[in-house]
Amino acid sequence: MSDKVDEKKSVDINFTHFKLKRILNSNSGSKIVSLLGYLTDLSDEKEAVVILEKKAFTESDLTSKEGFFSSSTSFRKEFTNDIYGNFECYPRPEINSVKTTVIYPATQKHIDKYSKQEVHIVQETPDLYVGTTLRHIEKEQFSLEWLYNILDHKKESERIVFEDTCKETGFILLPDLKWDGQTAETLYCLALVQKRGIKSLRDLNESHLPLLRNILNKGIQAIEDKYAVGRSQLRIYLHYQPSFYHLHVHFTYLKHDAPGIFCEKSHLLNAVIDNIELMSDYYQRATLSFVLRENDKLWDEFKREHEFRKSIKHE
Amino acid sequence: MSDKVDEKKSVDINFTHFKLKRILNSNSGSKIVSLLGYLTDLSDEKEAVVILEKKAFTESDLTSKEGFFSSSTSFRKEFTNDIYGNFECYPRPEINSVKTTVIYPATQKHIDKYSKQEVHIVQETPDLYVGTTLRHIEKEQFSLEWLYNILDHKKESERIVFEDTCKETGFILLPDLKWDGQTAETLYCLALVQKRGIKSLRDLNESHLPLLRNILNKGIQAIEDKYAVGRSQLRIYLHYQPSFYHLHVHFTYLKHDAPGIFCEKSHLLNAVIDNIELMSDYYQRATLSFVLRENDKLWDEFKREHEFRKSIKHE
Repeated sequence: MSDKVDEKKSVDINFTHFKLKRILNSNSGSKIVSLLGYLTDLSDEKEAVVILEKKAFTESDLTSKEGFFSSSTSFRKEFTNDIYGNFECYPRPEINSVKTTVIYPATQKHIDKYSKQEVHIVQETPDLYVGTTLRHIEKEQFSLEWLYNILDHKKESERIVFEDTCKETGFILLPDLKWDGQTAETLYCLALVQKRGIKSLRDLNESHLPLLRNILNKGIQAIEDKYAVGRSQLRIYLHYQPSFYHLHVHFTYLKHDAPGIFCEKSHLLNAVIDNIELMSDYYQRATLSFVLRENDKLWDEFKREHEFRKSIKHE
Repeated sequence: MSDKVDEKKSVDINFTHFKLKRILNSNSGSKIVSLLGYLTDLSDEKEAVVILEKKAFTESDLTSKEGFFSSSTSFRKEFTNDIYGNFECYPRPEINSVKTTVIYPATQKHIDKYSKQEVHIVQETPDLYVGTTLRHIEKEQFSLEWLYNILDHKKESERIVFEDTCKETGFILLPDLKWDGQTAETLYCLALVQKRGIKSLRDLNESHLPLLRNILNKGIQAIEDKYAVGRSQLRIYLHYQPSFYHLHVHFTYLKHDAPGIFCEKSHLLNAVIDNIELMSDYYQRATLSFVLRENDKLWDEFKREHEFRKSIKHE
């Protein structure tokens, strides 16, 4: 069957022709589902990714005359017991829409991106860091041009919230790209250190304590000054593994469930400073856990290493 | 206005008479909102708490002939651009219901429970632990009867997944009450140590390493045997502060966003063992961060301590 559309133009979609091939991922917490299938009126071969997302409640949903508590909504009782009751509520469709995103035609990359992936938690000993992770970082040579552009004021200088220009203990604070830069409830800033060559947590020792304390104190002050969010309302942390290998610190609003704040990924800056104060080479001696996705290249390296060790053990 | 209902009987609710007083809390991530208001046909004085929750997608929503992709659903285009498109989807009400929970009449405790609360992250030095937290724990004398009943096989013995009866290094593993005990994707087990008197992380030192390693190894094995979930799929951690002061370890499925797994609350068991191996009195010397809600009694103690210290500093 040939395609009926010119792919250079954007496509009008008739969803009644969507034929589900498989559910790629479903998140019952955030009420989002990603689907793979065919828009059979357009093609029987090209695949479409469709993402459905239930929407958050808005104030007007709850207060308007035509909202959830109007006569256009019906309710069905599930049970009542003493002061507690459970009901199913059926609002009219207009106030209960579902956000729908379509990618058509979808490539394998799109399919991977929206698919549930197997993840593995690994324990990185100091040996594994040097022999596997560090080698991986050096081999991949991730580009940091975009970041040096920020440090050199070549890009994004209008976004800088605060800057300390000291080459040893200084940093640039700016809103994370995921943040709108305004809503305090979802505050997310990043501190990028001026000093180059500190790849991650693993490189830190007592020589970095002035840098870390400076980020903690001046970062808090800058956020308080600019956004009126106080110290006890901030989660201040480093990721391990980080998404790029130039030392940076995350500042998020404590009540905001920002991505990547789980205990297997995030290390509070206060704890990092305290650990180094207790033991200056703590981060060269500690075994650190983190999560790898099956399509991370580093996972292949860890798996190979693990199988190699097992093979030695059983020899 | 007098109440029209006998409160001993459960109440039938007519939601068109719900008058919103205020939004107690709204979570845009999980699409849940809690409301305070009046059911004006029942009373103008007694308050009701109403919780609305958008529901997760089910497979049949997506595959059935009357489901989301049937002719009973209408779609409105927001925009299309190249291979990407955004639409609003309006399913028929029957497949897009909203879970509704009512508490009526609601007490102040109910209102507090469903209200957004201010939270504060605090740094507990060893001094603050001894002078403030430990004193608080001893004063409050939280009852552990329910837990001793489990350890003594007086209660819930049918729920035990695994037991090691050694009084020093043994533990009981059982499904957490939040878990249905079946769905691997939301797996949540708790290991309760047999030994009494270990209140939390703060009490741990090298004498506890055999206990901690035993929980790690046998807990993993028991979960693999019973639920076929392997070691690299498990998040194994302790809470600080814990919800009860008898040492216990959480085992959750790595991909499950269980409550309380954020970096300011959870400590991976692997990291705890490693820290004690590096420094046997690590947990007596470390400064530990955690979050307190404004209505936690311990927050009052920390605030008092903080203000006391400030007053000394400025004398």
